[in-house]
Amino acid sequence: MNGECEIISVGTELLTGAILNTNSRFLAEKLSSLGFSVHRQTAVGDNAERLKKAFSQALEDNDLVIVTGGLGPTQDDLTKETAAAYFGRELILVPELETHLRDWFKRRGLQMTPNNLRQAYIPEGARILHNSDGSAPGVLLEENGKIVILLPGPPHEMRTVFNEQVLPVLDQYCSACVTSRYYGLTGIGESKVEDTLMDLIDAQSNPTLATYAKPDEVLLRVTASGTDIPENEKLLDEKEAVILERLGGAVFTHSKQSLSETIAGFLIKNDCTIAAAESCTGGLISSELTQVAGISTCFMLGVVSYSNQAKKNVLGVQDETLERYGAVSAQTCTEMCEGVRRLAGTDIGVATTGIAGPGGGSVEKPVGLVYTGVATKNGTVIRENHFTGSRTHIQKRAANAVYQMIREICIKDK
Amino acid sequence: MNGECEIISVGTELLTGAILNTNSRFLAEKLSSLGFSVHRQTAVGDNAERLKKAFSQALEDNDLVIVTGGLGPTQDDLTKETAAAYFGRELILVPELETHLRDWFKRRGLQMTPNNLRQAYIPEGARILHNSDGSAPGVLLEENGKIVILLPGPPHEMRTVFNEQVLPVLDQYCSACVTSRYYGLTGIGESKVEDTLMDLIDAQSNPTLATYAKPDEVLLRVTASGTDIPENEKLLDEKEAVILERLGGAVFTHSKQSLSETIAGFLIKNDCTIAAAESCTGGLISSELTQVAGISTCFMLGVVSYSNQAKKNVLGVQDETLERYGAVSAQTCTEMCEGVRRLAGTDIGVATTGIAGPGGGSVEKPVGLVYTGVATKNGTVIRENHFTGSRTHIQKRAANAVYQMIREICIKDK
Repeated sequence: MNGECEIISVGTELLTGAILNTNSRFLAEKLSSLGFSVHRQTAVGDNAERLKKAFSQALEDNDLVIVTGGLGPTQDDLTKETAAAYFGRELILVPELETHLRDWFKRRGLQMTPNNLRQAYIPEGARILHNSDGSAPGVLLEENGKIVILLPGPPHEMRTVFNEQVLPVLDQYCSACVTSRYYGLTGIGESKVEDTLMDLIDAQSNPTLATYAKPDEVLLRVTASGTDIPENEKLLDEKEAVILERLGGAVFTHSKQSLSETIAGFLIKNDCTIAAAESCTGGLISSELTQVAGISTCFMLGVVSYSNQAKKNVLGVQDETLERYGAVSAQTCTEMCEGVRRLAGTDIGVATTGIAGPGGGSVEKPVGLVYTGVATKNGTVIRENHFTGSRTHIQKRAANAVYQMIREICIKDK
Repeated sequence: MNGECEIISVGTELLTGAILNTNSRFLAEKLSSLGFSVHRQTAVGDNAERLKKAFSQALEDNDLVIVTGGLGPTQDDLTKETAAAYFGRELILVPELETHLRDWFKRRGLQMTPNNLRQAYIPEGARILHNSDGSAPGVLLEENGKIVILLPGPPHEMRTVFNEQVLPVLDQYCSACVTSRYYGLTGIGESKVEDTLMDLIDAQSNPTLATYAKPDEVLLRVTASGTDIPENEKLLDEKEAVILERLGGAVFTHSKQSLSETIAGFLIKNDCTIAAAESCTGGLISSELTQVAGISTCFMLGVVSYSNQAKKNVLGVQDETLERYGAVSAQTCTEMCEGVRRLAGTDIGVATTGIAGPGGGSVEKPVGLVYTGVATKNGTVIRENHFTGSRTHIQKRAANAVYQMIREICIKDK
């Protein structure tokens, strides 16, 4: 095999824009990280003629073609029939699949209609790719050194069949050993990361670099492909030295974790308790930290003190402070993070107060002005931030600014 | 024009799976809603030969081809050059674009390097599609009744150029009048919605139906295409009657809004104040409601009372209640929503307490057990829910259960 491949997605709902094609991206990333080179991605509708044309064009240029979708029980589902016809094979009923199918419906208390039996047929001589997550199995066809793999369309089933059934097969065809490292960066845009590493990205020889933008974060992947792991690690070490020299300050993790997951992990590992008083972030910090399993031993209390009343009654912010400096001020922020820390009796108290917009801004206190604070036993640190973007962008940037402060203040303390 | 079109995305970062192809979906939805029929979506790398082949295959079958990406200033950006060569046209420098480009860099205090000038060249005889959001303009080429439109790759710029420059042009070519209606549904899965409406979806004549799955919500779009709006409205009325008869109980909005946006809108419109006491949802309800601009007059206080200490000290939950019934109980939930309502002095107090998992479950109180409560001046309603799925799924389902309760209890009261 030459390692060149194409991904075909089948489904009219892709062509109408009804759904986003996450399958292509998942497969592209998996195949690339295995050392395959994806040359094209195609999406076509539930139409036998066009599907046949897509097969033929893909097999002209590539040795491996992965097709997702169109394996279901309805008349629209034509992928298996088209592939069988293309390779001149019959569809045959597999008793083992029929049994599995009948069990699958029975376990769910569902009626199995006659058209569902279509899912128990596969092209003669094909390999069955069992689906532990749904009723439609995948199929692998091999002919003249070319491989066509058909996978179900629902993303969860597609991923399950790929991971459980396809990966072990592809491993045989892929002689290269591939190793990846990930870095999470914040406080820097994706295009700035690309600019800074442009010479490395442009080279794209070995290792290759890829960036993935997330809200206010960038995930950087570096992938080396060689004959063994030690060789790859050496290549990765060299690139890592350059990356950390240029961007080290922005790197918050050497993993795929998000910033909030990294901070939650740090808190759990260090048995460090925390409470949050949020105004403009409206509960985002509490919500993100509590999405991490195991945080309940660390996260004690969140207060979303949107009204001044709540700031006073719950957190103990002074009337005088609110009157003299306003709710959006370093002084109010100080009393918020100290107040919530005292109330919850935690190691750390954090706070945000600002103007997320789009309304509510003024010349003195424009949209995007956010004070972020962290109180610990060593004292309180307050920062004045000026963020741009939409309301949700400003909220996410403010949350990330708090995580960064926790990282700087508390990780240094440890 | 026959209304048949293809979308080509250019960029090696798509083929490696480094980024998700949101451009194709955006364009597919826009073109479909204009009455165009998208026959294929293709993604190719930054490679002149493959790009040329993609152009040629697309123009064979379609009268309209929209290409995104590859219009930037670097050597990798080949789309304009390839399109010009394909149509046998020269690239010529447009002084107006050069001025715009120099201004664009100057306003941002950036140095304009010589390669940036490439963006001021367009194929002879082409129409410029101005980019108010970036440095690379789009281009429209017309030849022998076929149209090729080149758009920048960054999603924000692509959307801006499409909406501002391409829509008015396509309107001329599209004789059909298209009208869409949207419905938001909750408490029902996408596949169940599809099953229930299968006869309407299968017909896919006019109007067409499409479903979009969001976490614990389904957005249903119904699109009619006719000669005028009254005709379309009549077609949509007929389908709406069927949809509401079959699925009416699950429909929470006749718009594109999410459930949390719908509830926030209801609160704002009715000047209804609210406070939330969250345990297992960890601030998700506060966070979602406060993402809506204008909510600050309604949302007064959120308390993420993760620890029992917080439940007692902040919300006034009785020691006895926690000891006798536990934190995850209808009794604690009652005291939480009543407590937060009293503390904040609001019209509504809501609460969640449950086990989001993956750990922390027991035989009596398994993962997924969540009590949700709503307190108003008319009394308190508590519901026992049993959710399945991952931690984040359970949290989202619990939040949506609270929104549904607000809708049922408070919208009925109004």
